[in-house]
Amino acid sequence: MKNNRVIIFGGDGFCGWPTSLFLSKHGYDVTIVDNLSRRNIDNELEAYSLTPIQPIGTRLRAWKELTGKKIDFININVAENYHRLLTLLQERQPAAVVHFAEQRAAPYSMKSSYHKRYTVNNNINATHNILCAIVEAGLDIHVVHLGTMGVYGYGTAGMEIPEGYLKVMVDVDGVHTPIDILYPANPGSIYHMTKTQDALMFYYYNKNDFLRITDLHQGIVWGTNTDETLIDERLINRFDYDGDYGTVLNRFLMQAAIGHPLTVHGTGGQTRAFIHIRDTVKCIKIAIQNAPETKDRVQIFNQATETHSVRTLAEKVSKMTGAEIRCIVNPRVEAPDNELKVSNKKFRQLGLNPVTLDDGLLEEVMSVAKKYKDRYDTSKIYCKSKWRADIELESEE
Amino acid sequence: MKNNRVIIFGGDGFCGWPTSLFLSKHGYDVTIVDNLSRRNIDNELEAYSLTPIQPIGTRLRAWKELTGKKIDFININVAENYHRLLTLLQERQPAAVVHFAEQRAAPYSMKSSYHKRYTVNNNINATHNILCAIVEAGLDIHVVHLGTMGVYGYGTAGMEIPEGYLKVMVDVDGVHTPIDILYPANPGSIYHMTKTQDALMFYYYNKNDFLRITDLHQGIVWGTNTDETLIDERLINRFDYDGDYGTVLNRFLMQAAIGHPLTVHGTGGQTRAFIHIRDTVKCIKIAIQNAPETKDRVQIFNQATETHSVRTLAEKVSKMTGAEIRCIVNPRVEAPDNELKVSNKKFRQLGLNPVTLDDGLLEEVMSVAKKYKDRYDTSKIYCKSKWRADIELESEE
Repeated sequence: MKNNRVIIFGGDGFCGWPTSLFLSKHGYDVTIVDNLSRRNIDNELEAYSLTPIQPIGTRLRAWKELTGKKIDFININVAENYHRLLTLLQERQPAAVVHFAEQRAAPYSMKSSYHKRYTVNNNINATHNILCAIVEAGLDIHVVHLGTMGVYGYGTAGMEIPEGYLKVMVDVDGVHTPIDILYPANPGSIYHMTKTQDALMFYYYNKNDFLRITDLHQGIVWGTNTDETLIDERLINRFDYDGDYGTVLNRFLMQAAIGHPLTVHGTGGQTRAFIHIRDTVKCIKIAIQNAPETKDRVQIFNQATETHSVRTLAEKVSKMTGAEIRCIVNPRVEAPDNELKVSNKKFRQLGLNPVTLDDGLLEEVMSVAKKYKDRYDTSKIYCKSKWRADIELESEE
Repeated sequence: MKNNRVIIFGGDGFCGWPTSLFLSKHGYDVTIVDNLSRRNIDNELEAYSLTPIQPIGTRLRAWKELTGKKIDFININVAENYHRLLTLLQERQPAAVVHFAEQRAAPYSMKSSYHKRYTVNNNINATHNILCAIVEAGLDIHVVHLGTMGVYGYGTAGMEIPEGYLKVMVDVDGVHTPIDILYPANPGSIYHMTKTQDALMFYYYNKNDFLRITDLHQGIVWGTNTDETLIDERLINRFDYDGDYGTVLNRFLMQAAIGHPLTVHGTGGQTRAFIHIRDTVKCIKIAIQNAPETKDRVQIFNQATETHSVRTLAEKVSKMTGAEIRCIVNPRVEAPDNELKVSNKKFRQLGLNPVTLDDGLLEEVMSVAKKYKDRYDTSKIYCKSKWRADIELESEE
């Protein structure tokens, strides 16, 4: 890298915050850009992080006080304030930017036409503004983007999902000819759709402007703490347990901690890819350190360490805690069951040694959930969003 | 069709206007929705239609006076004013909408970061708002969208480009397995990129909400008049000859008419697909009459009737008129030469009998260009947009 400056777009969020601390600890000069949209959505949904997250100013003062390291914070809406974004890039000239600045919950993206439209407008313009500003600034900045395994849909014909590209054979005048294509997109929600649209922007800006881009197709994140967020309670990370932003495994652990049945959508036959938040931050550092060369195609890594069906996870948590499993109507439009095999060779080759579900961290999440359980609101547990108007969710008794 | 009501989004533009007249003539109850953005861009670029187009109010009064048929006009920015769009759909309950409401010039989309961002924001939000409003209204409305052959890029390995979908073989545990995928997107400009992003929205809204959608992958349009626009000069269609909005064949014919050399980008080895404006309007009527069934996948037609290299077209016009050919630096990032074979079986099977370059309509375009040649501005002929900052366009002498 030409310098150690990194800008983290969305650096106040669930993945962005621990990533910012991890990179700061490892010698990067970190600037967080965030418009605090995730905190504002807490206000809208009246659903707050189970953990008592501190204002970004308090967080950054604590980090400085405890480690001597300074992280700058700038409040910019990158989807709206293009000119401020452009001048920031010109001023800082970072070697890399990490782009988390998108609305990241599928259920939130499906709540209403307002939420669909917000997600499309925010995510597409945020990504496009970042790419466009880098080109306008004329700077060579490596873009590391947090994408999702969901761009692949739920697997095709039992095949292992490769890392972004698929070799296929096409028929040219009767001759089988191999071509390499972006893995065909099959999004399962408006949120996922925006990530498949992002992929086309990366493809285009890489082809036309030679931008160096790494797109991380991340699985569902579980866990809450990293070594850095554990230093002091003022540094604690978000923990979402609500029906919109809570991710499945964290939700189960939280439900078990408060004595609520584990809410499984449908039969739980959906297989998903997972990653612990500790591995997320490591993967992003690895990605920053392994930028593609100029004129390489977009580099795509699958950022997921294991796959499980939702049912298996519920059974695991149930066995560990005695919690009851409750199957409820699935609010999503999806197949009731799917297989999922995912390649993650690239991160393993670059040295990632993943945390797995059997490494004792399930208990750690439970203990966080128990510690803050007086902060939960039981009315926020069920998912109220639904994928189509004709889906009838069951009432909570 | 349940009723004869059709809304034409972008019905004041080059394709939208003659389509609106054609549908009105053939018994449809047409409402034009347009924010007049194309006329406002004329003001921005200081480049106006060669033909003296009348204000939309004058156009519609003339149509009523001459044919007795009433076309309504409503000025809505569908990318911005979602609520007005929604209530319009609820009020009119059209059987079909035709969606032309996108910024449609590749060179314009590449002029500056402002133009890139305008094109992305306008096109994505316009398409998404229309789809989202149809779902929110709960109406069964067939969406006919004007896409572009450019979503395919410039062909793959010499294969004939199919209509939207590609059958490929993938390797599943050593077994060759056929799957049907959306043709891999390979956009050549920001404008084209937005159309590939549109395709993902169509795919998703069709899958999740069962919207009935026909996406027309149109070639480059040439010609200016249709039977309807010829009835009276107040109904005349746009004729763009400038470097941003002028399409290649119309530009050559205009250049020949005013004694300007034919400006060929690079060597002119680029092969493109073409369609005459008279066939555009017919294809749209055919598409409206042939909606897919509910739960059918997105229906994709290639709306192009012949392919030619730019060089071949220049030579044809040169031979016809004696005009000189001038090769200039290509402002686009693209291969200097490409093959292009395009399937258009579906429209032919549905009865389209295409106009071709040999049908005498080249002369008709020339005669329009000659009639209005005192209106041209020679400073607008060269393309000033360029695809990357390091491309050096030659100065005009």
